[in-house]
Order: sequence, then structure tokens, then C-alpha cells
Amino acid sequence: MAKKNKSALKEKKGVSVSEITNISSIKSIQDRRKAEIDTDTLIAKILDNDITALSRAITLIESKNSQHLEKANTIIKECLPHSNNSIRIGITGVPGVGKSTFIETFGSHLTQLGKRVAVLAIDPSSTITKGSILGDKTRMDALVKDKNAFIRPSASGESLGGVARKTRESIILCEAAGFDVIIIETVGVGQSETTVHSMVDFFLLLKLSGAGDELQGIKRGIIEMADSIAINKADGDNLKKAKIAKVEFNRALHLYPEKSSKWQPKVTICSALHNEGIDEIWDIILNYVEITKKNKYFNQKRNEQNKFWLIQTIENQLKSEFFNSPKIKKELIKQLKLIETNKTTPFTAADYLLSLT
Amino acid sequence: MAKKNKSALKEKKGVSVSEITNISSIKSIQDRRKAEIDTDTLIAKILDNDITALSRAITLIESKNSQHLEKANTIIKECLPHSNNSIRIGITGVPGVGKSTFIETFGSHLTQLGKRVAVLAIDPSSTITKGSILGDKTRMDALVKDKNAFIRPSASGESLGGVARKTRESIILCEAAGFDVIIIETVGVGQSETTVHSMVDFFLLLKLSGAGDELQGIKRGIIEMADSIAINKADGDNLKKAKIAKVEFNRALHLYPEKSSKWQPKVTICSALHNEGIDEIWDIILNYVEITKKNKYFNQKRNEQNKFWLIQTIENQLKSEFFNSPKIKKELIKQLKLIETNKTTPFTAADYLLSLT
Repeated sequence: MAKKNKSALKEKKGVSVSEITNISSIKSIQDRRKAEIDTDTLIAKILDNDITALSRAITLIESKNSQHLEKANTIIKECLPHSNNSIRIGITGVPGVGKSTFIETFGSHLTQLGKRVAVLAIDPSSTITKGSILGDKTRMDALVKDKNAFIRPSASGESLGGVARKTRESIILCEAAGFDVIIIETVGVGQSETTVHSMVDFFLLLKLSGAGDELQGIKRGIIEMADSIAINKADGDNLKKAKIAKVEFNRALHLYPEKSSKWQPKVTICSALHNEGIDEIWDIILNYVEITKKNKYFNQKRNEQNKFWLIQTIENQLKSEFFNSPKIKKELIKQLKLIETNKTTPFTAADYLLSLT
Repeated sequence: MAKKNKSALKEKKGVSVSEITNISSIKSIQDRRKAEIDTDTLIAKILDNDITALSRAITLIESKNSQHLEKANTIIKECLPHSNNSIRIGITGVPGVGKSTFIETFGSHLTQLGKRVAVLAIDPSSTITKGSILGDKTRMDALVKDKNAFIRPSASGESLGGVARKTRESIILCEAAGFDVIIIETVGVGQSETTVHSMVDFFLLLKLSGAGDELQGIKRGIIEMADSIAINKADGDNLKKAKIAKVEFNRALHLYPEKSSKWQPKVTICSALHNEGIDEIWDIILNYVEITKKNKYFNQKRNEQNKFWLIQTIENQLKSEFFNSPKIKKELIKQLKLIETNKTTPFTAADYLLSLT
């Protein structure tokens, strides 16, 4: 039995006979074998739509352990050919706009239509906000219990780049696990919207009516990214204000230049709490997918997003390598002092620092 | 005489005796000597407020010849201790807003107050717009003839980073040449406003009233950068509309969070053509300088700008070195194909490309 395993391993991994003649080698091979079985099993289970396996694999992606990351990379590689076949929806809005309730209602609407829905989150600030995003799963009570839904909070305490990579890789696994709709939630602050926008097909902005909130949104440039704006909490006393806001947003959106998707962003009102207007938003998304698949924009955008992440990852790594070098760190401080005292220019200092590597 | 020169050179440059015993060395020393005299003379003349010398030095900065650039660096280094003592004003606005007329009237107002005014321009798109910015100096007829004004069009056909560096370095020389006010003009398109904003003390946005122009400005995030908005062409039939626009902009500006300068941006109306409201704008700028010098923001901002340009220059160089390497260029194309065909992820591809260097 042991022999059979060894020869099987030899075939698979090209282990030499000399390598397996001492105990420690055998031990390490056994470890490797175990890891392989785990990975292979996980992959098979993910492709069989097993949510527990998916969850375990995402934990590997999020691990800081290099062996785990190696496993994660193997899993991602094997899942890749089975990915890419979902609709990826980004959802943003300032705190208080009702994102959790919206996702609960919207997600449940989709599972009732027979879809399988995965909800991921990007929240680089979760160390500050104490991981509130998706942390309070009780707000998504129905969805959490729904066997056709998968909810995964954001990896926290990471750089935005780190969180982004983990989320992008999680999308691949979710798609391989047969999820048709991937929702990426983000908090309505900082750079996270831009990050989410660059990894989804459709970007939905949740808004509230009134209180000057409209203009603040314009300021952050988020409205420009939106494929649709949904004015939430359009119920009771709010309904009238929401209808007015809808008209205002529609007017504002028409002032922006046409998107390269040829898609004219739509404004709707909804009440996630009362499940009103939710079906309309899903219809808008289906319409968007139909139009952009027909005009080839859909795949083109995904290709561009891939290229963006490739370049972005390289640039971040180049910068981090340079500025984290102890030699550069030391000299940078000196050069900054020389600049402050008017003894050198930023450009001469840059030339000098670059010459050190 | 020749001997005296040689020994003088030896002292200055540390040339060894053996080095000057053959003809070619002597020739190269003479060349070097000539260059030194030129540079020294230029520096002396610049510090003596000579506009012709200033102009020649800026030409060296803009040159693509490496010897010229070496000279330029020497000049900049010597001018640095005499720089930093001007008010740097960025002026932007869409084509048609009347930038040239405004600068003509505003600049002349300043020279009449005894100021010396330099006008530079940033126009990375000048290859497309055929260098129209400041190219048509006839629009600044009075300022061109004014001995206390210096007008220099943008270096064209360059990357924005290249133009930015040359402009920043030109500012140093203009200040060393005794100019009190440096105006940096930019076209109202693309990234040039951000670039100018990061090299001036005060950012002035020229606007026209009406025609939805207000919202377009908000969209581009330029209003957020403005320390003051001047609604130009506020004359004749336009006056009433301009006054309404002033109220609107004031309201919009109050919705933005307080600037770290503690400065509340001011909105004014003016008619550059009829020299109306121009003195008010200068008063606003003086007020800004007074407040921000008192609360230390003025120098703090200049330090931050220096740091920004240092980091920016390094990052651009790191990227350009990496992506222009022939090996990377070749492999990047291959990796992009693997990504497109779902055989690798952008992150794995990035890891691989980075491993090649």
C-alpha cells in the first residue's frame, strides 16, 4: 500500500528514488501527499457546488501562511476554467442607506428566481469600523439561512490592494462553485468604491433622498461610476421626496457624457424593507447584461479589469519594494530634509534615490 | 594665460596634471571651461533679474540634450537658495472662458502695482491643440511688451510628467530672477489641473455663467481644488446671469468639507475685458496668503508638494523602467493572452512578471 502510494507520487510529482530513501523525505512526501489530497478534494467539492469547501478555500486565500497560499493558488488555477460565468454586481452607498437590508431583500428575490447568490464585501476600513460590514449577519437573516446563498465578510486589517486581491480570487472560486450572481458590497467611504467598480460588471449606487446627500455623491465622483442609482427607503413619508430625488438624479445623469458601454444609467426608487422596486432593479441589471453582451462591452470590460489588476499589482509591488528598502528609507529622510532647506529639488532627489538601486 | 586658466581649473575641478598633458584632454577642459563660464554667467545674470538669461536657462531645462540638462541642473542648484519667495497662482478654465484676456488684465494690474509677473503654462495636450496655449501671445499684447512681465509658453510634445518637471524647475528660475508672482496657466481638460494644483499656492478657477457649465465643473472635481472661483465675462447681458451663478457656486462650495488650509473658497464675478473685479481677485489672493502664512499652511503645502513630486517622479521612473524592459514587454503580451483565455489570474501573472527582474 505504502509502495503503491510512493510510486503514484513518483509518477505525479517526479520524486526520485534517492529522495525517498530516508525518513524525513518520506515524511515530507507524506505531508505533500496530504496537502494534495486536501487540495484536490477541495477543488472537486467546489466544482460540485459545496459551500463548506468554498468557504475553506477562501480561508486559504485569506491566510498569511505561505503554504496555505500555495494551496490557494493551486485551487484558483483549477477553478479558473470554471469561472467567469456569473453576473458581478457592486453595491455601494453611505452608511445608513440600508445596504444590508437591500442585499437581504435583493438576494432573497434572486434565490426565489432560482439563482445562487454569493455576497462578498470590500472594507479596507474594517479595522476602524470594527468590521461592521457584513459582520452583523443578523441583518441578513433570511439570506444567511438560504441554502442558495453564500455570505462572506471582508478580510480585515489589510491594505486595500490586499483585500482587493483576496476578493477577486474569491469571486473566481464562487463562480466555480456555481454561483450565478456575485454581489460585492462596499462601504460608502474612501477608495473602496473605485476598487469594487474595477471588479464588477454592474455598479449599483444606493442613495437616500434629501439632506444635500445628492451633491456629496457627485463630489466623490461615484455617481459617474454608477450604472444605476436606487433611491432606497422610498416608503411612507419619504416616498414623495424620493420621487423628487429620482427626477433630480435623472437630470444630473443626463449631463454626463455617454458611457463607453452605451448604457444610459437608470434611476429607480425602492424600499428594501417593504420589498418594493427590487424586481425592477433586477430587470435593469438583466437589461444591462443583454445590451452589453450584444455590443461586446461586457467581455471587453472584464478584459480591461484583468489588465488593470495586473498592472496595478505590479506597480504596487514595485513601489513597495523600492520604498521599503532600508537603504532608501534612510536616504529618503535625508533627501526630504535637503528639499525642505532648499538645497535640492524633488527631481534631483528622485534621480539620486533611483541611482541607489 | 593658458597656464593660469589650467591651474584655476585644477583647483576648481580637481583635474590631475597627467590629465592635462595631452591635446584632447586640454580640448575637453577648454570645452568644460567654456560651459562653466556660460553657466556661471547665466546664473549671475538670472540673479540680476535678466529676462534674456532666464529665457536661455529655461531653454536648457527644456532641451533633450544631456549636456544641456547637466548645465540646467547646475543653474537650478545655484538658483534654489534664491527661490521660494513668490506667490504661485494656478489659473484654469475651459477653452473660451477667456483665460488669455484674464491673464493679460490681471498681470498688467499686478505690474502696475510694482510686481514682477511671470506666466508659464502647462499644456500636455499642446501636440493635439497645436500649442495654442499662450502660443498666441498677441492676445496678451500689453503684457508681452511689459518689462516687468515674462511670458513663456509650455514645452510641448512631452508627457505630463515631463512638462510638470520642466515647469516646476522653471518656477525656481523665475523666482531666482526676482519674479514676485508666478502664474501657471492650464487648459481646462484632462489631468493638467491636478498637475498645476500640485505646484501652486493658490488655485483660481475661471468660469462662465449658465449653460450647465457649473455641473460639468463639479463632475471633474476641479471645483474642490479651487481656492477661488471667478465668473468671467460678467458684463453686458451676462451680468445678471453671472450674479446668479455666483450665488449658486457659493452655495455649492459651502457643501464641501472645510479645507485643511482653513480657507473658505471665495466666488467673485469679473470682466477681464473691461478690467472689472480684477483688483478684488488680487485682494482675495493676498488675504489667502496672509491667512495661510499665519496658520503655517502656506509652507506646509509647499513641503507637501515637494514630497509629492519626489514620490511621483520615483514612481513614474520605476514603472517606466519595468514596463519598457524588452523582456517584460514580450512576456506581458503572453501573460495577457493567458489571462484572456482564463489560464491565469492577473495576480499570478503579476507575480510571474515581477519574478523576471
